[in-house]
Amino acid sequence: MKNILIIGAGRSASSLIKYLLDKSDAEKLHITIADLSEELAKKKANGHPNAAIVVLDIFDEIARRNAVQHADIVVSMLPAHLHIEVAKDCIFFKKHMVTASYISAAMQELDAEAKANNLILMNEIGLDPGIDHMSAMKVLDEIRAKGGNIILFESFCGGLVAPESDTNLWNYKFSWNPRNVVLAGQGGAAKFIQEGKYKYIPYSKLFRRTEFLEVDGFGRFEAYANRDSLKYRSVYGLDEALTCYRGTIRRVGYSRAWDILVQLGMTDDTYTMEDSEHMTYREFTNSFLPYHPTDTVEIKLRHAQKIDQDDIIWDKLVELDLFRSDKIVGLKNATPAQILEKILTEKWTLQPHDKDMIVMYHKFGYELNGEKKQIDATMVCIGDDQIYTAMSKTVGLPVAIATLKILKGEITTPGVQLPIGKEVYEPVLKELETYGVIFNEMEVPYLGYNPLNVEN
Amino acid sequence: MKNILIIGAGRSASSLIKYLLDKSDAEKLHITIADLSEELAKKKANGHPNAAIVVLDIFDEIARRNAVQHADIVVSMLPAHLHIEVAKDCIFFKKHMVTASYISAAMQELDAEAKANNLILMNEIGLDPGIDHMSAMKVLDEIRAKGGNIILFESFCGGLVAPESDTNLWNYKFSWNPRNVVLAGQGGAAKFIQEGKYKYIPYSKLFRRTEFLEVDGFGRFEAYANRDSLKYRSVYGLDEALTCYRGTIRRVGYSRAWDILVQLGMTDDTYTMEDSEHMTYREFTNSFLPYHPTDTVEIKLRHAQKIDQDDIIWDKLVELDLFRSDKIVGLKNATPAQILEKILTEKWTLQPHDKDMIVMYHKFGYELNGEKKQIDATMVCIGDDQIYTAMSKTVGLPVAIATLKILKGEITTPGVQLPIGKEVYEPVLKELETYGVIFNEMEVPYLGYNPLNVEN
Repeated sequence: MKNILIIGAGRSASSLIKYLLDKSDAEKLHITIADLSEELAKKKANGHPNAAIVVLDIFDEIARRNAVQHADIVVSMLPAHLHIEVAKDCIFFKKHMVTASYISAAMQELDAEAKANNLILMNEIGLDPGIDHMSAMKVLDEIRAKGGNIILFESFCGGLVAPESDTNLWNYKFSWNPRNVVLAGQGGAAKFIQEGKYKYIPYSKLFRRTEFLEVDGFGRFEAYANRDSLKYRSVYGLDEALTCYRGTIRRVGYSRAWDILVQLGMTDDTYTMEDSEHMTYREFTNSFLPYHPTDTVEIKLRHAQKIDQDDIIWDKLVELDLFRSDKIVGLKNATPAQILEKILTEKWTLQPHDKDMIVMYHKFGYELNGEKKQIDATMVCIGDDQIYTAMSKTVGLPVAIATLKILKGEITTPGVQLPIGKEVYEPVLKELETYGVIFNEMEVPYLGYNPLNVEN
Repeated sequence: MKNILIIGAGRSASSLIKYLLDKSDAEKLHITIADLSEELAKKKANGHPNAAIVVLDIFDEIARRNAVQHADIVVSMLPAHLHIEVAKDCIFFKKHMVTASYISAAMQELDAEAKANNLILMNEIGLDPGIDHMSAMKVLDEIRAKGGNIILFESFCGGLVAPESDTNLWNYKFSWNPRNVVLAGQGGAAKFIQEGKYKYIPYSKLFRRTEFLEVDGFGRFEAYANRDSLKYRSVYGLDEALTCYRGTIRRVGYSRAWDILVQLGMTDDTYTMEDSEHMTYREFTNSFLPYHPTDTVEIKLRHAQKIDQDDIIWDKLVELDLFRSDKIVGLKNATPAQILEKILTEKWTLQPHDKDMIVMYHKFGYELNGEKKQIDATMVCIGDDQIYTAMSKTVGLPVAIATLKILKGEITTPGVQLPIGKEVYEPVLKELETYGVIFNEMEVPYLGYNPLNVEN
């Protein structure tokens, strides 16, 4: 038997654990599920004979090191900032490790030691980061293999609600950390390069400079720019590409409506509001509008944001209960962003019967034999239910597949890694297809942003 | 002879030093001017027989303590964060001290020691903070003395260019730190209370929610809200006032045009731009606009900001050279805000013949015998020239007057102080009048923001 230690049994570990348990007889795996919550670990183990559970406080060094020592490979599904202590234990006890998180500076520092010990510390092998890396590198490598020169790379991803569960005017529900959704885009301008020109979009314009995307069978989406589109430029070998852009996918109309909340100041997380605990939702909204003795909050907001009588944006605001004076915030010393998060959570929480949906869209522009060409690749994944969500599948399955392949010696390159090598992405993407995570690649006419080669 | 040590001989010390030197024979004063720059100190001493100069590095503890030890009172005109070491020396050697800066937490901590030693550490006795405190407290105390109950306090101040030197479309030149002008309003919402309701204006709306002010003989101004209008609410005894608002004065139209720069993202100081050193002004502007192969930067900006053909805002942007491709930024790794500051400094620097202007406007609403009344108080001060600027006079003269009065035992209340007591503001304001810093107080009809007492 090979021992796999999984630390963290939260929502995104469901599909990961199920995959490994389903294979445990055939592959002779013993899986230890460690979590601070015994209940959570038990639920995920589901009484499987090849599963054991451990109640583990990650800050209890002795217990943590003991758990790592008895494993052959460790999967950390902890919050990103907690991986590093586990990683150090893995180096000490000479164990491989897999995470779905961004490589931190501290993690990167372990690279030499990992290589010296022939250990794999595989990171960024979930959804985004993860499937985006793999599916992009696959097409980029293919284009380069046939002699193409990449001139454009755009990549979009969004966690959304499945069409059959899409029941509100925003066409959005939370399938991921609500706080991150409220704070999205804050903390500096979005930066990218377009036709060789660096572009910067300030937060106050971010949700008005979206572009549309069409996915066969799923209709139209929109995307706003991520903070740093240039993060993987060098990693992907795209330093010479004229256009490099990464974005977040929403349903059409979400961003324009969200921008109203941004413009009002409701997403601000830098100060706390006076007596937020006893404030009504209506008072919350009114506090961002000029005082007037008779004009209503409604007319003041319509005027301030120039919302016409027949604009559906208005109904989106009403749907959030922003004008109700019978609902109380009930949060002490809360920031506007915290209050908004509470208001949204009441409306945008996935219900027990709801399904989520992941959408990914890549565009690859390239030159081959003097001709400009383009390949678009799209992937849509819909959750099975509230346990095996699309988020859980797309984050957990690549982690699980890679874990098993490392254990079996099919993935061997040591060091602090991310899944950009063919050795990793090829078998992982192939197996993901059997779980419904399928990319549709199609040749499309190359458009780019300067089809006529005009200078400006 | 009494010894006065003045540390810092920069621009705002000119009127301060002149005042004390002019009085030095009659009052038997010996004035030591200490600065890191010998040239600056010499220039300010101007060969006066009662002046000595000292080249002082404020971080040289021995030299600093030696200078403090030989003084009877110390005036610190250093940047605000450097006062504290001087203040500790003053406590140690039992010297009074005067500054024009906000009381820092570290300074406040010296209060008990100052009181125990019967020392005065007078702060915030320049312009704003300073003259604003004194002129406000004078009227507030008068209203209270006749039994009035304050219901509204609004206070506005601006450093501008004098009408005779007002030669650009923005009606603005820098008479104070340009960087602070570029960053004005950033770092959280502006907060105030209006008719009993707390209001918050986010940065992205700050320059569009101005109000107009009329000053007899000087025409119309506008004001945008300061970050924290409630800072002095308790200090001024205004906890029960329904409206409390502080703002910054500009000429009409400045804020709407400034907002264009804000909306573009040019005031952002949180990230550095790619190759800022070799960027043209036109490329700087273009980097905030969507890419297009043929549309000009001009039409893209007009469209993005919805600027009509006949809107004077456009000419204000052109006046800043924002569309010129023959001007180079020339700053390495610069933030947008740093680049904008450079661009503005070329256009908004006061010329040798230019005069600056300080405008202050207070509104006091109160109830007396069941009647609502209002007093408005305005002050306009115009600089003599580029040395004795309005800024130098309004910052330096109250510091100088208070320094002499403390030295002569006419101001006696010990501790870490700001000038809100009658003992201070009455004689200082009276003497300021002889220097042309005069407040016009007038009874006006009370308007407030809810004249009909309608509920909303």
